[in-house]
Amino acid sequence: MVAEVKLFGTLPSPFSQRIELALKLKGVEYEYVEEDLSNKSSLLLEYNPVHRKIPVLVHNGKPIAESLVILEYIEDTWNNNPILPKDPYDRATVRFWAKFLDETILQLVIKSRDATGEEKKRIFEEVVKQLKLLDKELEGKEFFGGQSIGYLDIVVFYMIYWYQLRQEVMELAFITEENLPILWKWSKKLLEIAMVKGCLPSRDIHLAYLRARIGGDAKSTSK
Amino acid sequence: MVAEVKLFGTLPSPFSQRIELALKLKGVEYEYVEEDLSNKSSLLLEYNPVHRKIPVLVHNGKPIAESLVILEYIEDTWNNNPILPKDPYDRATVRFWAKFLDETILQLVIKSRDATGEEKKRIFEEVVKQLKLLDKELEGKEFFGGQSIGYLDIVVFYMIYWYQLRQEVMELAFITEENLPILWKWSKKLLEIAMVKGCLPSRDIHLAYLRARIGGDAKSTSK
Repeated sequence: MVAEVKLFGTLPSPFSQRIELALKLKGVEYEYVEEDLSNKSSLLLEYNPVHRKIPVLVHNGKPIAESLVILEYIEDTWNNNPILPKDPYDRATVRFWAKFLDETILQLVIKSRDATGEEKKRIFEEVVKQLKLLDKELEGKEFFGGQSIGYLDIVVFYMIYWYQLRQEVMELAFITEENLPILWKWSKKLLEIAMVKGCLPSRDIHLAYLRARIGGDAKSTSK
Repeated sequence: MVAEVKLFGTLPSPFSQRIELALKLKGVEYEYVEEDLSNKSSLLLEYNPVHRKIPVLVHNGKPIAESLVILEYIEDTWNNNPILPKDPYDRATVRFWAKFLDETILQLVIKSRDATGEEKKRIFEEVVKQLKLLDKELEGKEFFGGQSIGYLDIVVFYMIYWYQLRQEVMELAFITEENLPILWKWSKKLLEIAMVKGCLPSRDIHLAYLRARIGGDAKSTSK
């Protein structure tokens, strides 16, 4: 029997981790298909010909790409355990910050790959400055989504975790308890939740992947 | 009496035009506040301290920024005349293409500002290549949204119109009937709809603004 829901991802990707957690929070059964990004399957390229990227969710044979679009699809399709707030203004607020993280902050991190020395340091100071806005947004709250894990918690957590591992590999320290005390505490708390942790590969595998990838980044940007 | 809904925009901006049309389609009354982007008001900076950009929608004193986030807010708040499709997969599809236009294609256009000669030409060939995907998406449809104007029509139309004026100012021809026949025909049809046209400044004012702005872009990127 063909599974109704399939997720094409890579275990160390914060973008596919987001989709795994959302599906788990909704209790949706799915088949996970691991993609080798250095040798993408023809199925992935067929399902996401525009970006040729993971994650792709395939539901009843129909593919959906882009993690934030997939999260909205999951929310629209499975109404139990809502991940988006009910109130339109609260929904706009979490969407605003998710977009900010995936565009403004991610663009800075991508830019940092080409940079060295003082320039690299300056970019990561800017990343911290922007992350401080998210730190402030979380002030006085248990989760971004209020009393339980929601859309913005899912979106932010795996990126922060990924950045933490990246900085370890790069021997930098920009995400620290001192710089981002509220996000720091919240991320430790989330990491203790079995369902959240369950979407992450082991720390060793994750670090090995990042070491290879950051090496790869350096190579590809030196062209 | 304080207006319930206020929009901070600039008339020639495709991003604020989107919001105007969505509000008009929903029949929402609003007060429009024109911003001078070379001398932004303190109110705009207070309402959108993160990006310091228009458009900002203020509803009952609460600000919402980022045009795609505002469109979702408008849909969530005023349920009449839906602009998003009902079906979750169709919703995901229009969200995917809106994101593609605002990220992939817009990034290329921004990159073109720094380019000259062959490089500029190459970038615009790439823009056309990407827009052809949207052209294909529209094939056989009256509107992106089906039988009536919806979210993706709103998002794409003002960008295409803006690109058409831009190319006139730059004396380039990348958006042509030959290159993008379906988008071309559809954009002519939309321009004849009074409500759609009503969100645009006059062609002369629009062109004068773009001439000044494209000059400004060149200056700011030469720093």
